[in-house]
Amino acid sequence: MKAQHCAVAIAAGLALTLTWFAYAGQKPRSAAPIYGVTLPAGYRDWPLVAPAQEAAPFDELRVVVGNPTAMRAYRKNVRPFPDGTVLVKLAWKREPSPDFASASVSGSATTVQVMVKDSKRYASSGGWGYGRFVGGQPVDEAQHRTCHACHASRVKDRDYVFTHYAP
Amino acid sequence: MKAQHCAVAIAAGLALTLTWFAYAGQKPRSAAPIYGVTLPAGYRDWPLVAPAQEAAPFDELRVVVGNPTAMRAYRKNVRPFPDGTVLVKLAWKREPSPDFASASVSGSATTVQVMVKDSKRYASSGGWGYGRFVGGQPVDEAQHRTCHACHASRVKDRDYVFTHYAP
Repeated sequence: MKAQHCAVAIAAGLALTLTWFAYAGQKPRSAAPIYGVTLPAGYRDWPLVAPAQEAAPFDELRVVVGNPTAMRAYRKNVRPFPDGTVLVKLAWKREPSPDFASASVSGSATTVQVMVKDSKRYASSGGWGYGRFVGGQPVDEAQHRTCHACHASRVKDRDYVFTHYAP
Repeated sequence: MKAQHCAVAIAAGLALTLTWFAYAGQKPRSAAPIYGVTLPAGYRDWPLVAPAQEAAPFDELRVVVGNPTAMRAYRKNVRPFPDGTVLVKLAWKREPSPDFASASVSGSATTVQVMVKDSKRYASSGGWGYGRFVGGQPVDEAQHRTCHACHASRVKDRDYVFTHYAP
């Protein structure tokens, strides 16, 4: 009987969880290794911080967007970025425009990269957690091991953030 | 006495108008020639439609953002774009990144270009009004005469809009 009760309880819990995800209209989001960072809900609607271009072999157009905490910090020049700051960099293959020979446009999406500021949780990596996603799924742990080392070696004096706000 | 009343009324009206602008925290926005299009309030916080790059001599990074009507139309593939659609293209000089030899980043802002859909008001230009701004001020009428001619000659079959939504 006890085992049966357990099974019923587990089934009920599972059903509730699935119902919650269905209700929220979201699939469970996969977390990046090391940091547990997930793709933040609604980031595709966040305001623009700045665009960038990456030469071959990546040959990409990229745009960094920020949540409200990030945008406030950029605009008021608050550094270090406060806890709760989230930055997302979207990237696409750069393709020739079909309309203008002089122009390039965004092609297929490549990676989405996330930085989350939580000075306690991520104390050992300058207060930042990192996530790198391809097709909505996080890449492997080895790739995530490279994130903070690179940011720390180049832009530690800018609170580990490469991107400046585009005026 | 009548003239005095008039002067008082005009002064009061002027004061109210100035107070309104001060209250709204906005300067009066200058309107583009031909179309009367102005820089829309809050566009710097609008979501991203797509990035682009323009080769020399412009050598720019550009990003198109859209108001909620524009974003809904893009995402639901509604064409022609409904009245109330507003698209804004921001542009910056492309500069070498100080951090990566392979990267370019946004430098100084150059132009901001606006398209507003109003099928009645702009019936003679495919339903679109155009505005081109430098330093927050509209450029001259001659430049505005080129907008619709170019859009009509190249992308009339896409409701006169060049930019596709970046996935």
